[in-house]
Amino acid sequence: MSSLQQVNPRVRGMRTSPHAALQSLAARITQEITQGAQRSFKEVIDLTSGDPQRAGMKSISFVRQVLAACLCPHLLKDTSLPLDVRLRAQSLLDSCDGGSVGAYTPSAGLARVRQSIAEFLTRRDAGAPSYSRDVYISAGSQVALMLLVKLLASGEGETPTGVLTPVPSPHTLPGLLDEEGVTLVPYRLTEERGWALELSELHRALKASRGHCNPRAIYVSNPGIPTGHVQDRKSIEEVIRFALTNPSLSLSLQVYQDSVFGSEFVSYKRVLFQMDKVYSESVELVSFHSLSSGRMGEGGLRAGFMEAVNMDPEVTRYVHVMLCFDISAPVTGQLALDLMVDPPKPGDASYDTYTQEILSARATLSHNAQRAWQILNGLPGMSCQPAMGGVYLYPSVRLPAGILEQAEMLGVEPDVLYCQRFLQEEGVLVGAGLHHGGDTHHLRLCVLVPPDSLEEALTRLSSFHLRLVDRFSQCEGQRRARNSQREDLSVS
Amino acid sequence: MSSLQQVNPRVRGMRTSPHAALQSLAARITQEITQGAQRSFKEVIDLTSGDPQRAGMKSISFVRQVLAACLCPHLLKDTSLPLDVRLRAQSLLDSCDGGSVGAYTPSAGLARVRQSIAEFLTRRDAGAPSYSRDVYISAGSQVALMLLVKLLASGEGETPTGVLTPVPSPHTLPGLLDEEGVTLVPYRLTEERGWALELSELHRALKASRGHCNPRAIYVSNPGIPTGHVQDRKSIEEVIRFALTNPSLSLSLQVYQDSVFGSEFVSYKRVLFQMDKVYSESVELVSFHSLSSGRMGEGGLRAGFMEAVNMDPEVTRYVHVMLCFDISAPVTGQLALDLMVDPPKPGDASYDTYTQEILSARATLSHNAQRAWQILNGLPGMSCQPAMGGVYLYPSVRLPAGILEQAEMLGVEPDVLYCQRFLQEEGVLVGAGLHHGGDTHHLRLCVLVPPDSLEEALTRLSSFHLRLVDRFSQCEGQRRARNSQREDLSVS
Repeated sequence: MSSLQQVNPRVRGMRTSPHAALQSLAARITQEITQGAQRSFKEVIDLTSGDPQRAGMKSISFVRQVLAACLCPHLLKDTSLPLDVRLRAQSLLDSCDGGSVGAYTPSAGLARVRQSIAEFLTRRDAGAPSYSRDVYISAGSQVALMLLVKLLASGEGETPTGVLTPVPSPHTLPGLLDEEGVTLVPYRLTEERGWALELSELHRALKASRGHCNPRAIYVSNPGIPTGHVQDRKSIEEVIRFALTNPSLSLSLQVYQDSVFGSEFVSYKRVLFQMDKVYSESVELVSFHSLSSGRMGEGGLRAGFMEAVNMDPEVTRYVHVMLCFDISAPVTGQLALDLMVDPPKPGDASYDTYTQEILSARATLSHNAQRAWQILNGLPGMSCQPAMGGVYLYPSVRLPAGILEQAEMLGVEPDVLYCQRFLQEEGVLVGAGLHHGGDTHHLRLCVLVPPDSLEEALTRLSSFHLRLVDRFSQCEGQRRARNSQREDLSVS
Repeated sequence: MSSLQQVNPRVRGMRTSPHAALQSLAARITQEITQGAQRSFKEVIDLTSGDPQRAGMKSISFVRQVLAACLCPHLLKDTSLPLDVRLRAQSLLDSCDGGSVGAYTPSAGLARVRQSIAEFLTRRDAGAPSYSRDVYISAGSQVALMLLVKLLASGEGETPTGVLTPVPSPHTLPGLLDEEGVTLVPYRLTEERGWALELSELHRALKASRGHCNPRAIYVSNPGIPTGHVQDRKSIEEVIRFALTNPSLSLSLQVYQDSVFGSEFVSYKRVLFQMDKVYSESVELVSFHSLSSGRMGEGGLRAGFMEAVNMDPEVTRYVHVMLCFDISAPVTGQLALDLMVDPPKPGDASYDTYTQEILSARATLSHNAQRAWQILNGLPGMSCQPAMGGVYLYPSVRLPAGILEQAEMLGVEPDVLYCQRFLQEEGVLVGAGLHHGGDTHHLRLCVLVPPDSLEEALTRLSSFHLRLVDRFSQCEGQRRARNSQREDLSVS
């Protein structure tokens, strides 16, 4: 493999997000500061990672204590740990082969954890039955999604499989579909309606895809990443009805289901099971959830799960085959999933601490989302829809003509240039939206960070943005002046 | 995706190992015993998993203590933990973003752990330089291998990429190559020479592949899985010379490098760097190592790494792109890799315990391999090469004609039938070799299990095998008698 020409063309064709370049720049600046470089800021604040613990949010004590006792069983006798922690750790260890977290698990995950998840889903969905055989544990929701996409892909030489994908979408989604040679069929979310999904837009997208690909699934993120929109029951019903007669499979990323503050979360499964049998017994639905998002924020432990409903057993057989090649998800992560779906109950020794920690994180998220929304909407040229859930805000920003011209000259996207400048001048990393119309672009901000960090980042953003607008409007003034001088001269 | 016809044909074409069916049978028997079924044995002994902790081997205390303290930082102050454990945990936490194992890491792994690995490799290879930028951490060596195979695959419509693969090979290898549409180019290892790799066989395999595929890599497992063969320097040099002029990339699985008892392990990298510049500066080599194998046996933590030598930076760029889509390997596993490559040193509080635990596991492995070899070679029709490393034995077994006929009637492989019968009658799961000539087949036995379990399993194997041979030789006798009667009758 001595030359680039020999790399798998599909891999070569994977689009890389310009976000990676911004991240590298942030890392370089951080390193320079560590090595003593003088900057106007002491550290880089990252508002893109969606990684709460990285940003300084606390972990949930109950989760960490149980996992520590599972790793070091001598802690099971340590009475400084709450009783329910020790009992849970013992019971989880009993479900591991060899009584050890060091052993592999079945490739779809520990039977006991799959059962806990199925019970959680049944409770969550008001009794719509969930079966552990339909639950697959993987090393995060991204890994599960990749597996599904690979299953859907059409294979060589055939009309490529298409997947209806929202615009905007999670920034890693396009590359993930590229990797399996699956065609994106973009449908636009409606910003002025708080980034709602409109049925007519699904039909338009489907029609536009004709002749290019064979659309076989619709991908939905609810709560929306990065929009923060939460679908209501009616909207979900529309998607399900659409899926019955069109692309048959719905892929529903619901990783922020625990982080809904401006609305109520209703799952796709729940809505599906309350619809007519025509739908509830035939529309295929795969929903994803993850340890990394929302309540736990334990991305580093790498675990998530998917539930597949109404899927042909002859097809799910291949899910097992493919999971086998990953061997199994990390066991510490699997055990943490059990804790996520079955937390301490009233009366348990850890209940009060657990509840307080969860409520505190939720209050921070809701406060931060509100605060950021307020500040962003106060800046000239910026406009932000209120988030109803998830951890992102996605404001639009009308960029000065001057920065659009500079971007064109430099061959970069204007929103990427904005983010680069902001990072260099103020040390804050925000995501470029990569979604625009005319001079309106978007930024992606994760607000699940400690309130002090958010406040500091917003102050720096305000200062940068006002300076930028000011700088370019002066330029604009000078240019206009120059132009009118020229006109005067040419007239004279 | 309502019908099987629509599953990605490449996925549909993945060969599944009959091992999965044997595993299901073992699980069913275990369940029946739990539910009170009467059997001649109390539990199933699994000699296939290659998963020492599942089989009842102990974990290394140092590893578990450090990880527990990383998960629950309040343990950093717990003086019942050895000082070096607490210091190491603190230092590892300092290398995590946000000081937490709950945060994602860079997609190629924590910089600090990659650095520790590079230093370990440099020490291991007598100073042949290793650089952290060439080290990629992943969720196990299997995941890393899949990534490399995907990079090598030719893409749609072109001559398929071929990979030279040993026979016998790790039982998951064929399916893994299938998944990416890569063609296997089998080269046979020489049983009578202790499963050594012969250069002439590589040339034969390469020649035979002409017109079918474009061979671009050679895959070697050293120590051999499941053969237990350990290559000497000369053999490695031959493979490297072969790789210079033929398929350019060598993929070297060295996961049992810590588990060599009948020989000395020399790495491919070390040999490469002691060869002429023609080789050392141009032969591309990727080596894999894992937490699951050998010294640590921590498969459940899911971490491994690969080192890429002499690879074009334009190519390794795509390794990064692909790793990004897995986000990052589990952090607890990454930290355990640091402990594997940089264990306690003389004078550290944990040194004595650590050393004793490691030596005890190694002594068990070496004793078990010797003991199993002895018993297997004493059984009629069985013959086993001595293992020099790794955790498997791979005896050949000459099966009675009667079982070959039964297998043909039932439409299963004779070795699979042998394993099924053994499992049903005696409750021991061994692997079918799936590699045979005439009536000679092979079995795959993992011997890294507690000595009592091994002894019990070997007793049951002896009893089953002798009974089987006896049963079929009686049948054979009766048949011969019948045949000669018939002959007598026809003559008379």
